Amino acid sequence: MAKHPKLLIVGGGFGGLAVARAMAREPVEIVLVDRHNYHLFQPLLYQVATAALSPAEIAAPIRRILRSQENVEVRLAEVTTVDVVGKTVTLQIPGGGQLLESFDYLVLAAGATHSYFGNDGWARWAPGLKTVDDALEIRRQVLAAFEAAELEEQEQERRAKLTFVVVGGGPTGVELAGALREIAVESIPADFRRVDTKTARIVVVEGQDRLLPTMSACASGRALKDLTAMGVEVKLNTLVTEVTDSGVVFEGKLLPASNVIWAAGVKASGLGAQLGAELDHVGRVKALPDCSLPGRPHVFAIGDMACLADPQTGLQVPGMAQGAMQMGAFVGRTIADELKGVESRGTFHYRDKGSMATIGKARAVVDMGRLFLAGLPAWLFWCFLHVFFLIGFKNKIVVMLSWAWTYVVHSRGARLITRDPRSTNAHDPDISR
Amino acid sequence: MAKHPKLLIVGGGFGGLAVARAMAREPVEIVLVDRHNYHLFQPLLYQVATAALSPAEIAAPIRRILRSQENVEVRLAEVTTVDVVGKTVTLQIPGGGQLLESFDYLVLAAGATHSYFGNDGWARWAPGLKTVDDALEIRRQVLAAFEAAELEEQEQERRAKLTFVVVGGGPTGVELAGALREIAVESIPADFRRVDTKTARIVVVEGQDRLLPTMSACASGRALKDLTAMGVEVKLNTLVTEVTDSGVVFEGKLLPASNVIWAAGVKASGLGAQLGAELDHVGRVKALPDCSLPGRPHVFAIGDMACLADPQTGLQVPGMAQGAMQMGAFVGRTIADELKGVESRGTFHYRDKGSMATIGKARAVVDMGRLFLAGLPAWLFWCFLHVFFLIGFKNKIVVMLSWAWTYVVHSRGARLITRDPRSTNAHDPDISR
Repeated sequence: MAKHPKLLIVGGGFGGLAVARAMAREPVEIVLVDRHNYHLFQPLLYQVATAALSPAEIAAPIRRILRSQENVEVRLAEVTTVDVVGKTVTLQIPGGGQLLESFDYLVLAAGATHSYFGNDGWARWAPGLKTVDDALEIRRQVLAAFEAAELEEQEQERRAKLTFVVVGGGPTGVELAGALREIAVESIPADFRRVDTKTARIVVVEGQDRLLPTMSACASGRALKDLTAMGVEVKLNTLVTEVTDSGVVFEGKLLPASNVIWAAGVKASGLGAQLGAELDHVGRVKALPDCSLPGRPHVFAIGDMACLADPQTGLQVPGMAQGAMQMGAFVGRTIADELKGVESRGTFHYRDKGSMATIGKARAVVDMGRLFLAGLPAWLFWCFLHVFFLIGFKNKIVVMLSWAWTYVVHSRGARLITRDPRSTNAHDPDISR
Repeated sequence: MAKHPKLLIVGGGFGGLAVARAMAREPVEIVLVDRHNYHLFQPLLYQVATAALSPAEIAAPIRRILRSQENVEVRLAEVTTVDVVGKTVTLQIPGGGQLLESFDYLVLAAGATHSYFGNDGWARWAPGLKTVDDALEIRRQVLAAFEAAELEEQEQERRAKLTFVVVGGGPTGVELAGALREIAVESIPADFRRVDTKTARIVVVEGQDRLLPTMSACASGRALKDLTAMGVEVKLNTLVTEVTDSGVVFEGKLLPASNVIWAAGVKASGLGAQLGAELDHVGRVKALPDCSLPGRPHVFAIGDMACLADPQTGLQVPGMAQGAMQMGAFVGRTIADELKGVESRGTFHYRDKGSMATIGKARAVVDMGRLFLAGLPAWLFWCFLHVFFLIGFKNKIVVMLSWAWTYVVHSRGARLITRDPRSTNAHDPDISR
């Protein structure tokens, strides 16, 4: 029996899984490597950070997802080096040891991490939100801030402990700010005796002139109106110039705040730098229209690692789940066709199915082509779609139940402060997957 | 208005909560201090360690539990010193700072932690199971062991990675061993390609001549029979003499094992040593029949911190939830009576409502007076009681759903490897709550 060609996929996110699934019935030996043992449904990660959901409810073991696809092996390891000429990658095994893994085809789908625009020292005071561990760290800080405020005797210090600054007004920033406000105003006021948690300030700082800059003007306007109505303060056209242990500096002034969350920028996995290909300003690989690397037809970059414009529309493929999934499915079909003898490759076209952001309970915005939804209908649509795409039937039920619970009794189901605070170096934002 | 007397409760476990609840309508100012913000339903903690449940499903914020009881304030802090003469305690606030808290009455309900019988160095290789962080660490190690075995090329090393030793054959040890075996045999075999997880060895090492030494001989015999039928190896009359990074030594031989879990012994919170009272061999305070300290009628020790025999039966009050709850309610009533002018104090009597342990799916043992149950009826009874006593309506639903899920599709809902391995000093077993 002839040995099948070997496809190595780096990353078990939306993109990597889509590649594997597109090749379920192909005569190919697939190895999928991820440094986590689970696929994470990142669109709901902010709900873990804000104590509404538990990590396990939005994550599923990659092995479990692919268990019945017999041409796939899953490895829990971190890719440390990529050799596109020799066609090998080095895997660092957790707990020690290295493995050399060869490939015939390589798909890089290792995602992105947050970027502090060269100010990596800010990471210590302003954690970002990309991994489960990030979310648990933010949850810990947020819940601990209210506890510390309850015990604080100095009014000024208490104000700082009750001030939450979200840097960045994209979907993650908007969603975090709305949820933080709901915690302070709805979930916990009756639990505290000394401090009035309703007085907590939630401030969103955005550098551009509108919230949700990647969405429609309608969505931006409505998000601003809704967040303001909820009591969130929004600063537009405002750049953060410093983050320290005492707060955030913008417009030349320090806003004393114990709680700063970074939702401002991302950069692609550091693996892109090893490919010898040109990168854009956020570290994404400039890919050809078939998602492959220039001069390396057997190496592909997809999802948040790829910089690619749709040749028809000229628009960049956005760094969202649907972009990664579409690219993954396209690359899977491309390789499958090539193995069947098809010589010319197609061109990737992005099909924009719309974008959305939730703002708070019964408040969301949805852009779908020329259709715009807001308020309760948008929120219900958002809930439905997120549950629909969540992996795992039990997770779907539990998440719906948790949302109903939060909606009806204003309770947050995962209000646990676990773990010691991270040590400084654990904030190291260099998370090449 | 006269200031109410102040009752300080250290610990928000079963005992501390029972004290607070017993005094819900009394003219008293209650302060409850815990170093965690949640009450933990410890009887189900092993299910977090074995990936069946998420931490939030068996924990509830103490503030939330007591939110409507207006005479209680909750503080998230660690008690570092107790002055029973000056009637003050020192609180260490997470994140820095100290508070001095005075009291008229003090109830110590700070629980217990695991004890390595003087071999604290073993903690590094054999984590115990007392806190949520402990459970997540064990979950991480267990799941990572199978992942590492999948990548291991040396047969001998792979065997060690697939060998799990549980030290201690009490309820926790039996429950852990059964669940580990179910993971290896039912939950994950189809997810792995190279390694046969069904070949994993689970070994329970118990120093006494039977499992579940605190239960009836019927229960011990049935537990041994059921565990053995499930494929767990049980070593009775066997003392562990060494635990290292390569395994466990007993009967003069090293059993190579990457995974050792400590379920062998507990010791009471270190706070007991500060009271000037006599302690027993596991650090529990020798309390008077009214749970107070000799010569200190305003200071009480309850639950796992108290060494107390029922004067009628001569039997020690066992270190279980029901013992702590009964003591807590008794002490609450005692103080309430005293505030009403009752001069003589009663004597605490323990009412044994029975004890139980689960062994595996549809297998459990229950002792209730002269009644003994085993197998499916015992297991259903165990499930019912644990769900019944779990705090929070939503938690009850989610836990039932998770169990049904595990029962029907053999899936474990919380199979996530999160966090970096603990640093060595984080294993420091001195966890005075």
